[in-house]
Amino acid sequence: MAKRTVYCGQVTEAQLDQVITLKGWVQKRRDLGGVIFIDLRDREGIVQVVFNPEKSREAWEVADKCRSEYVIEVTGLVERRAPEAVNPKMVTGAFEIMAKDITILNRAKTPPFAIEDEQVISDEIRLKNRALDLRRPKMTQNLIMRHKTTHSIREYLDNLGFLDIETPYLGKSTPEGARDYLVPSRVHPGHFYALPQSPQIFKELLMASGFDRYYQIARCFRDEDLRGDRQPEFTQVDMEMSFLSMEEIQEITEGLLAKVMEDVLGLSVTLPFPRMTYDDAMNQYGSDKPDTRFDMKLIDISDVVKDVDFKVFQMTLDQGGVVKALNAKGAASKYSRKDMDNLGKYAGQFGAKGLAWLKVEEDGLKGPIAKFFGEKEAEIIAATKAEVGDLLMFGADSYGVVSAALGAIRTRLGKELGLIDESKFNFLWVTDWPQFEWSEEEGRYVSAHHPFTMPKAEDVELLATAPEKVYAEAYDIVLNGYELGGGSLRIHDRALQEQMFRTLGFSDEAAQEQFGFLLDALDYGFPPLGGIALGLDRLVMLLAGEDNIREVIAFPKNGKAADPMTEAPSTVSPLQLFELSINVTEVEE
Amino acid sequence: MAKRTVYCGQVTEAQLDQVITLKGWVQKRRDLGGVIFIDLRDREGIVQVVFNPEKSREAWEVADKCRSEYVIEVTGLVERRAPEAVNPKMVTGAFEIMAKDITILNRAKTPPFAIEDEQVISDEIRLKNRALDLRRPKMTQNLIMRHKTTHSIREYLDNLGFLDIETPYLGKSTPEGARDYLVPSRVHPGHFYALPQSPQIFKELLMASGFDRYYQIARCFRDEDLRGDRQPEFTQVDMEMSFLSMEEIQEITEGLLAKVMEDVLGLSVTLPFPRMTYDDAMNQYGSDKPDTRFDMKLIDISDVVKDVDFKVFQMTLDQGGVVKALNAKGAASKYSRKDMDNLGKYAGQFGAKGLAWLKVEEDGLKGPIAKFFGEKEAEIIAATKAEVGDLLMFGADSYGVVSAALGAIRTRLGKELGLIDESKFNFLWVTDWPQFEWSEEEGRYVSAHHPFTMPKAEDVELLATAPEKVYAEAYDIVLNGYELGGGSLRIHDRALQEQMFRTLGFSDEAAQEQFGFLLDALDYGFPPLGGIALGLDRLVMLLAGEDNIREVIAFPKNGKAADPMTEAPSTVSPLQLFELSINVTEVEE
Repeated sequence: MAKRTVYCGQVTEAQLDQVITLKGWVQKRRDLGGVIFIDLRDREGIVQVVFNPEKSREAWEVADKCRSEYVIEVTGLVERRAPEAVNPKMVTGAFEIMAKDITILNRAKTPPFAIEDEQVISDEIRLKNRALDLRRPKMTQNLIMRHKTTHSIREYLDNLGFLDIETPYLGKSTPEGARDYLVPSRVHPGHFYALPQSPQIFKELLMASGFDRYYQIARCFRDEDLRGDRQPEFTQVDMEMSFLSMEEIQEITEGLLAKVMEDVLGLSVTLPFPRMTYDDAMNQYGSDKPDTRFDMKLIDISDVVKDVDFKVFQMTLDQGGVVKALNAKGAASKYSRKDMDNLGKYAGQFGAKGLAWLKVEEDGLKGPIAKFFGEKEAEIIAATKAEVGDLLMFGADSYGVVSAALGAIRTRLGKELGLIDESKFNFLWVTDWPQFEWSEEEGRYVSAHHPFTMPKAEDVELLATAPEKVYAEAYDIVLNGYELGGGSLRIHDRALQEQMFRTLGFSDEAAQEQFGFLLDALDYGFPPLGGIALGLDRLVMLLAGEDNIREVIAFPKNGKAADPMTEAPSTVSPLQLFELSINVTEVEE
Repeated sequence: MAKRTVYCGQVTEAQLDQVITLKGWVQKRRDLGGVIFIDLRDREGIVQVVFNPEKSREAWEVADKCRSEYVIEVTGLVERRAPEAVNPKMVTGAFEIMAKDITILNRAKTPPFAIEDEQVISDEIRLKNRALDLRRPKMTQNLIMRHKTTHSIREYLDNLGFLDIETPYLGKSTPEGARDYLVPSRVHPGHFYALPQSPQIFKELLMASGFDRYYQIARCFRDEDLRGDRQPEFTQVDMEMSFLSMEEIQEITEGLLAKVMEDVLGLSVTLPFPRMTYDDAMNQYGSDKPDTRFDMKLIDISDVVKDVDFKVFQMTLDQGGVVKALNAKGAASKYSRKDMDNLGKYAGQFGAKGLAWLKVEEDGLKGPIAKFFGEKEAEIIAATKAEVGDLLMFGADSYGVVSAALGAIRTRLGKELGLIDESKFNFLWVTDWPQFEWSEEEGRYVSAHHPFTMPKAEDVELLATAPEKVYAEAYDIVLNGYELGGGSLRIHDRALQEQMFRTLGFSDEAAQEQFGFLLDALDYGFPPLGGIALGLDRLVMLLAGEDNIREVIAFPKNGKAADPMTEAPSTVSPLQLFELSINVTEVEE
């Protein structure tokens, strides 16, 4: 084999009139009047190779045998194409290679789908033939973009003195958080490792060891039901720092994301990122991860409608609920009654009992509930800044339901009405999170972030008495309506950590049994610390303009947590189970 | 909190006469005539801080309360120590900080062991208190060295156009190789994922996708019994390349290791590395990973002794075995009869029935078997280049047993006799490996490397008829007697891969069932490819001068694959097992 001179996609003026060697895959072969043209593809792109029987009969004969996806090596002279033959759609379209020599390195059967971005192929077929699917230029570029992203991240963190330290994948199952993936131990029958949901405790211990600045691009595992942007295993840019304030940690994170935007997309972003409290986000956007690329905020009109004689509003307010409105500017004509019924059903998925609405016309508010407003109409119009042509929607329910339902409607209408500038990358810090959420399922408070999150100093005394009022030194970073990551300052005081476990419903014995090693470490000089974890898959997905993280993962699982290519998970031999001292109680056919 | 100005260990001339802020741990507090001296430690080292009550009574009072491992923040003026007070053992020993201000950030109980390198602590106590153990300067520096190593590796590979691509950790169990760690699937009852023993197949598929140059610093998992340099999970620098020759792949690997040596240790190594065939390594060193830092090769004396009237030799040769000698130069006086008996027992661990030996004295060979040699004495002396004072040892058995036993004796004597220059880093390529090993246990040939290794072209026809004679396009990289990594060219032809599976005892159906997705991918334009995987833990261990990989892993498992700190693996709840559709058949107490 000769050495490759240059990638196909990188043939430029620099190679003109030189003899070069290319290696790649046959994208397309055409015979035009006895001359063969092969579009040759490698990871960097495509270039045209010409086989003229008058220049090399031998090469022409080999080229004549080539078919799509054959692997070939070609040596030839780089020539400028005639002006009329220039292909402006190809990066290399001004040049072609006049072949002198060709070797077929491997042949190929006709693939199950053509290697082109435009192909519409089912997800299952793509995953089953992933090696071929990844040949498609968009997929190749997505993974190259992912590489550029991690390269950029590492460069930034290495320069700031962060140490890349690996933590175990065979860890311990703990009762907090999502469901663990378990790994039976052969050496210790009846005992199990757990794959980590995050390296949280280990990175805190590394701070206790004095490493000061840690990072790891770490795989994490959660055995949860899957959604579009969830996978059984995902990758986290995990960071932890000692002796820094929340603001300093955020500043370092902003610098990291700004560098990634610059390195990967060539975009410069404005620093610092805007900040919004969790309460403001919920009040104004009905979401803890608001997409701030468009406005259309939730407007609290509880005060305005408190005297309106509409039973739904009255009952809601009497029961301590809220009434809020959305104003979809100029959208009145775009939504029929039937559309509004559908929107109502959509709101129902988020717990709303319905979606009241009005259209603003020349002569006032029109719609099913218009009659109730009477003299309050002007106040409604003022509060919602309504103008002719606007569509007003109302939610009346508990604060949580109104936020969720109107937040979802807002997001949906933002897309449907084309309010979103897709070229924008709106980063946002959401700060001042509640420490706890009430879990109906478990009948106890659970951590909004995790049990190691530092509560705000002024709220510490509420831990024992009014957990619902405790706010945390926690912050999420949001990009275009997606939660990109979350972080916090951590507890570095043993007594406070013990109180936290108590509030979470642990007995002191249970806390010691599950987290004793951390509690003990807190006794021996734990530094003030904090950190953040960013979802790498989601970040690259947004950079690549994709809407599913599968598009930026080389070998993802499908919606049933399986890999159609390798057929994992699979049954295993009885000997394997015997060695692990386990039986299966049920086998899926 | 004030911002840190500089790490303790990095206070130099540059900070002289400046007011700086340090954060760290109290290594030691001494009170000398009313003045308090604190040695303050952070990850970069130690500096002395002085609290003089006449300069700041307030700071002195706080310092007086400090104890070992308290976490403090100190602000003070950097001064030059008086000449007689300079501590040449400390990097910062020419300076001290005259404290103006001190804050106790956290207190500490007296730790179970002092944070000093010199402490002798049991492995179990170290692992149980790993956060404290990692505070010891040597351990901190080991992990910093590991970071520098991976940084250097990534920089090198990124510059060469390698793409860092992640492959799944939830994979499929395959019958080849070591024992898999399994992960029960909740969604698919009775089905299991397997944690990868290496990303081998995925990286080959990435080559089929056209990524051309791949790398990943990947965690790998093997559920095998543990030895000093083995862990249930370990880290591999995994590389794969398309369209390159074995020599090109080796050249890239050599460049990588040379850069690491330069970046991490400041040492320049000579390129290219020496090469030795597997057969030569076994013949001369009795090892497939010879330590070439010292000589003392195995000498085949079968021809010399074929007429010697010593039954052991005669029977061995009659049965097709070999007789080999080792000459330990000048060692005769260092080994008593009892020592030789012990060496004989040691040889027995490698299958030898004994270890015959002779000492070379002024008047000829002396020892238990000297009488047999008679007139052949001169030939033995010539063949082994023996001189007065030398110790000759003999192995007579099958080629395998002689190699193993004398190879082990050679390694042991190399250490005992101080023949090894510990400052040397001897890299060596061991090439031309046998394709297969015969497995007594399984009663079939198994792959010496793995089933995807390309056999030498001239040996392909022997696959079906004489597998034991097939050599592979495989190469190991060896450093100072340790296998640092192994690689090969891979099969990129479907028919050849199918033949390989047949030779390994797979039916065509079994091969298709287990590896169908790879066989199918071979149909669609697989490029010529090859790669290598380097053991990162072992590499860093050797760079750090340690003799156990636990010393360069932040949170390793102990000899029973458990973590004494977190107590993983642990029992789990019945609900967890129920959800996974498994029962345990036995529980270790």
